[in-house]
Amino acid sequence: MNRTQATIITIGDELLIGQVIDTNSAYIAQALNHIGVKVTNRIAVGDDKKSINDALDAASLNNDIIILTGGLGPTADDITKPLLNEYFKGKMVIHQPTLEHITNIFVNIHKRPMIERNRKQAEVPDVCEVLFNETGTAPGMLFKKDKNFYFSLPGVPHEMRWLIDNQVIPVIKQNFQSHTIGHRTLLTAGIGESFLAELINDFETTLPEAIKLAYLPNFGVVRLRLTGTSADEKEINHALDAHFEKLKKVVADYLVTDADDPMEVVVGNLLKSRNQTVATAESCTGGYIGHLLSKHAGSSQFYTGGVISYDNRIKTEFLDVSTEILHTVGAVSQQAVEQMALAVRKNMNTDYGVSVSGIMGPSGQTNEKPLGMVWIGVANKEKVYSKVFYLRFDRIRNIEVTANQAINLLRLLIINKI
Amino acid sequence: MNRTQATIITIGDELLIGQVIDTNSAYIAQALNHIGVKVTNRIAVGDDKKSINDALDAASLNNDIIILTGGLGPTADDITKPLLNEYFKGKMVIHQPTLEHITNIFVNIHKRPMIERNRKQAEVPDVCEVLFNETGTAPGMLFKKDKNFYFSLPGVPHEMRWLIDNQVIPVIKQNFQSHTIGHRTLLTAGIGESFLAELINDFETTLPEAIKLAYLPNFGVVRLRLTGTSADEKEINHALDAHFEKLKKVVADYLVTDADDPMEVVVGNLLKSRNQTVATAESCTGGYIGHLLSKHAGSSQFYTGGVISYDNRIKTEFLDVSTEILHTVGAVSQQAVEQMALAVRKNMNTDYGVSVSGIMGPSGQTNEKPLGMVWIGVANKEKVYSKVFYLRFDRIRNIEVTANQAINLLRLLIINKI
Repeated sequence: MNRTQATIITIGDELLIGQVIDTNSAYIAQALNHIGVKVTNRIAVGDDKKSINDALDAASLNNDIIILTGGLGPTADDITKPLLNEYFKGKMVIHQPTLEHITNIFVNIHKRPMIERNRKQAEVPDVCEVLFNETGTAPGMLFKKDKNFYFSLPGVPHEMRWLIDNQVIPVIKQNFQSHTIGHRTLLTAGIGESFLAELINDFETTLPEAIKLAYLPNFGVVRLRLTGTSADEKEINHALDAHFEKLKKVVADYLVTDADDPMEVVVGNLLKSRNQTVATAESCTGGYIGHLLSKHAGSSQFYTGGVISYDNRIKTEFLDVSTEILHTVGAVSQQAVEQMALAVRKNMNTDYGVSVSGIMGPSGQTNEKPLGMVWIGVANKEKVYSKVFYLRFDRIRNIEVTANQAINLLRLLIINKI
Repeated sequence: MNRTQATIITIGDELLIGQVIDTNSAYIAQALNHIGVKVTNRIAVGDDKKSINDALDAASLNNDIIILTGGLGPTADDITKPLLNEYFKGKMVIHQPTLEHITNIFVNIHKRPMIERNRKQAEVPDVCEVLFNETGTAPGMLFKKDKNFYFSLPGVPHEMRWLIDNQVIPVIKQNFQSHTIGHRTLLTAGIGESFLAELINDFETTLPEAIKLAYLPNFGVVRLRLTGTSADEKEINHALDAHFEKLKKVVADYLVTDADDPMEVVVGNLLKSRNQTVATAESCTGGYIGHLLSKHAGSSQFYTGGVISYDNRIKTEFLDVSTEILHTVGAVSQQAVEQMALAVRKNMNTDYGVSVSGIMGPSGQTNEKPLGMVWIGVANKEKVYSKVFYLRFDRIRNIEVTANQAINLLRLLIINKI
């Protein structure tokens, strides 16, 4: 049995001049993989008839499923719908349920007049099946030709996601055989990619043909992923489980989690399971640690809040960092972050406090304190621990790495490893 | 003169299963566009020999420049280097400067032994020119064939960026003619895409062939971009300027900025030019507004700090929200956010205070307060203003939209529009 294959075509000049980052493709790829469809490649093309036609022709050759996103809006640069109408030799007709839906959105919800441009969004080629879009004005469309299925979706991320989950995936499940694919992912911290590779070299040679290992390094943490493919779901899952258990043992000293979760979710789960709470005192990360801890549902169970002490005055007034510390060793120092972690924990009455203070760049360094130098502190009732890092990325990455490292230190404190 | 054309090929299974979002392509596309190179498409393929070979063959047909990223690491799933060696019929040799560089990184900086796997990273095909990589262990490579230039770069984002800026772009500038491309971008807020399209319909018909208009909607704000292409740099820039001035007049009521800057940079610049400061009081956004305000260089000039009052107790203890307010109208209320904005401004002694409190989902709603309901408050010395929003996205997008809207309200208060 051959695996069902898919291509993702994203449409928009903005993708080719780098003005926006394509998050849609990753979402779609994930959803397809989850049901065993193999994504052979992803291609981004401009709002340009020839490019889209060429991409459609090429994609049609080796794939069963072609998913297009973008170019369905109400403006002149949105050319996907007329192009598909021509490609599949249809003619445009009004889709009545969509027209009613759009009218309702404009007239009843937005209290705005319905204009011709909006009415046009309810037009679809008569050769497609409409995938009703509850979340916006542009309908999804399904075209079928030579056993291939072509799905056209709007590029607006939340609309695209809704259509994938509620319309596209159910249609694919009904119409294509699934070739089971399984993934097992774990997260390591504290070891570089090449040393990790040495460590698991012997393990890697024991893997069967059907299981692949991938390294996904990301700023001080490395994820390892096993991927298995087979027609036999039970068999491949069994093999994946067995090899994954072996892998976990090999990397035990560096293992953060055996789930495909980011660091902050691992720590959030740890805190929830212990009924414990944390507060943050952030200087150089400016709220990013708070954002990571609170971006996932259920975070109010363990995240109490924090102080963003961007200005040194706030460190003194809200986090009890003495002016003496600021004047002698400075804000980027062991003394400052330890005091910050202790103070935010005490003042917000939580089990843990986390603090950071550093020089994120592109300027602000001194002779003693280079660019990328950052102190991180973590405290509980019994003790305070701090560590200095020297980072070498740009400002944004330095902020991200600092947040990751801070949350990892919190994790190590929670599980009594520091 | 034909424009120099390029394709970007990103390599890695993780791109096809949706485990990571491809930010490299956007960076490369932006850099190429900046020097007038047209990106015809971008393609992502797996760690798979046939897919990479096919992509190389296809890209070679219509392009002058092919940029590959990924698959250059030290592990077994990194197959790009041997594949290119075969594709361009070379043989592997040690590149001495790279070997010295790698040895230095491991032995002198990391104080770790140099292992065979690392030594292998200094091997390159003898048919390439090495693009020395100061920022990591995998060297960049340049292959030339049939007038085409093939650049192979590591996929690690900061290494790729350094190589693009310091090695690839200079080589392209030296070897290819530039066909000037110009962009003018502005940002609007407070008007939907279709109404904006109505508004600028007449303007759009006056645009010459060489200038294209694009709409880039993004959660309540819409960017408009004019793109001009011509062999005559002076002429196209002149035409772009003239049309851009007209466009700005047409959208004047909704114009946030005529630069390609995000909202928070516009507001940061406003504050800097007035020598004013702001503090944040965040509940449902958990630090994300602080992150936006502080992620750009120079933000310490205007961002003083904030309180993340995720737990209601923090609203009472740090932001003077009375328990009466919490017990009667609740934390997601006009009274609560107005008090929060006033308190954080006063307690942190800034010119402005911004506050948010809402229900980001996926749960937490009540009969009176639906999912996505969020109150935003802004205050200065003279007054406090607040507004309620009803958002309909998922948790992460709700957080992003809330932050954008809060920063926009701050902007309107600064320029006396509310």
